[in-house]
Amino acid sequence: MSHQSKRIILKSFPQGHPKESDFEINTIEIKEDEVKDGQVLVKLLYVSVDPYLRYRMKQVDNKAFQGYKLNEPLTSICLARVISSKHGSLKEGDNVTSWNLTWQEFSIVKGEELNKLPSNDLPLSYYLHSLGMTGFTAYFGLLSVGEPKEGETVLVSAAAGAVGMLVGQIAKLKGCKALGIAGGKEKVEFVKSLGFDDCLDYKTVDNMDEAIKKFCPNGIDVYFDNVGSETLDAVLLNINDGARLPLCGSISNYNDTKEAQGPRRTFNLISKNAKMEGFLVSKYGKDFGKAQQEITEWLKQGKIKEQIDERNGMEKIVPSFIDLFHGRNTGKVVVKIADE
Amino acid sequence: MSHQSKRIILKSFPQGHPKESDFEINTIEIKEDEVKDGQVLVKLLYVSVDPYLRYRMKQVDNKAFQGYKLNEPLTSICLARVISSKHGSLKEGDNVTSWNLTWQEFSIVKGEELNKLPSNDLPLSYYLHSLGMTGFTAYFGLLSVGEPKEGETVLVSAAAGAVGMLVGQIAKLKGCKALGIAGGKEKVEFVKSLGFDDCLDYKTVDNMDEAIKKFCPNGIDVYFDNVGSETLDAVLLNINDGARLPLCGSISNYNDTKEAQGPRRTFNLISKNAKMEGFLVSKYGKDFGKAQQEITEWLKQGKIKEQIDERNGMEKIVPSFIDLFHGRNTGKVVVKIADE
Repeated sequence: MSHQSKRIILKSFPQGHPKESDFEINTIEIKEDEVKDGQVLVKLLYVSVDPYLRYRMKQVDNKAFQGYKLNEPLTSICLARVISSKHGSLKEGDNVTSWNLTWQEFSIVKGEELNKLPSNDLPLSYYLHSLGMTGFTAYFGLLSVGEPKEGETVLVSAAAGAVGMLVGQIAKLKGCKALGIAGGKEKVEFVKSLGFDDCLDYKTVDNMDEAIKKFCPNGIDVYFDNVGSETLDAVLLNINDGARLPLCGSISNYNDTKEAQGPRRTFNLISKNAKMEGFLVSKYGKDFGKAQQEITEWLKQGKIKEQIDERNGMEKIVPSFIDLFHGRNTGKVVVKIADE
Repeated sequence: MSHQSKRIILKSFPQGHPKESDFEINTIEIKEDEVKDGQVLVKLLYVSVDPYLRYRMKQVDNKAFQGYKLNEPLTSICLARVISSKHGSLKEGDNVTSWNLTWQEFSIVKGEELNKLPSNDLPLSYYLHSLGMTGFTAYFGLLSVGEPKEGETVLVSAAAGAVGMLVGQIAKLKGCKALGIAGGKEKVEFVKSLGFDDCLDYKTVDNMDEAIKKFCPNGIDVYFDNVGSETLDAVLLNINDGARLPLCGSISNYNDTKEAQGPRRTFNLISKNAKMEGFLVSKYGKDFGKAQQEITEWLKQGKIKEQIDERNGMEKIVPSFIDLFHGRNTGKVVVKIADE
């Protein structure tokens, strides 16, 4: 048996913002009888698009981000179902995720590269968000890097985004004051609906330095940075002594064509005994299981609210990815490829 | 009895590099019979001039640095001798230091603000360097913030300066590879003579990014930053996974008249799971005694070499301070005011 399988190819390294013309969809045939020992045939169910993938589209040597190659199919964290298996611990019907699965309707992959999902009552797509890499990023970035203490002020940028929306909710669970920054009235309302104490609409702000000062009258103990740039700089003027700034991402700079400005007020790290600490979630790999278990409990008990911004079809992967850089998403963007 | 006492006044907030005309020397009379209960009369022996004092000369609200006021005398860390005492635990002849003593030949001060020095065979001026604030800055900045492990590469900028020269020596004592950056042949030779594994002369460098890459072929695990700016940025391109960057100072920016550029490559903190952590040495106040004891042992055993760049006389305080921003010093600058 064979499967006609659409896939998405990188045609050119984007210059500045990625454009649809940087990508191409074509079709290949995947033959079931080509599955070798140790391999499985999977059908793609959900694709995760994430800002950091933009880094993999840069024509630079950056091992940390496994750069994509021209004219080859793209990959990301995906959720799939096993169609047939020649791997001992996987069988037909198993749901699996992989951190690096091809954007292709059917694929033959090594079984050892797949994580079999537990079965529970939670929607599968959660495993691409709160129960997957995004959730772990929020969890370890806040708890292990940010080390928030009860009563402290935690500020997070891109608070309506996939990571930010979880950071603020976890901060609340830990007894902190959770403040968010987001763009536009709708997102601000969404962030507040999650239980954040307040949310600043940066689109209404003329002077970010003054806006942050007013928005955080008691200063900032933990700033979870998803955007970099002017926001990070304004925060540096308003940190409390001993502040911790987990650096998770810098979405305002991913499409820069020249070197970014970077934060200018790093001297305040000295005068405030504060630190900026970058992290890749993979650093915490050995504790993912524990985090997944805890977040599962929080979801089941209604302590964490989910928000999946679901799109449909292979043709929507690229536009959905592009949307991330224009703020055209609320919560986690997941593209559904096939029915469960 | 009264003492004619020269003192140094701040006449104007320096714009850019400080100039001699920003300061003035005048003379006042200090009367011994004005010493009240709890106070002592001290004679100034040595004045420490340090780059961070430039921050106290800025016309801004910066509590962390106790800004100077116009037309008032300046202060810094100084070493003095008690001439007469109405304080229970201090007596005539005691040598004392204070973190904030006036640049004035004779002063009446509260005894509680003075630290009585232990008596040993080491020169008194060491208490303004390796056995004082500068030494503690190197000690805690490297060991508590940088957390160097045996075999790691420790790089320090301004390596011929008061802090840098100690950082590299302590790194060697901890089994690290110690690399320095300094300006000019003479300083480079001095740094090497201290036992650093190597020292880069930045004055011979065209492209700092490439120079640091070549100078640190195994990458950088700890970068102790005294200068900020292009050097910090070049380092960020060459850090190893998990690198620690203690931020101690940013001398290249202290005289800026517009906002500094700041490091641009902070995204590398993310991709390398690395941190930049600022600190004020006062944070470690409770452990100063322990540090002083350990450094005293190192000095006595010849494990740490001292280098005091001694100048002479009240008239030399301001020029010596200005020299710091032009690299016209090797080791710790101390101005001797009176014979011991």
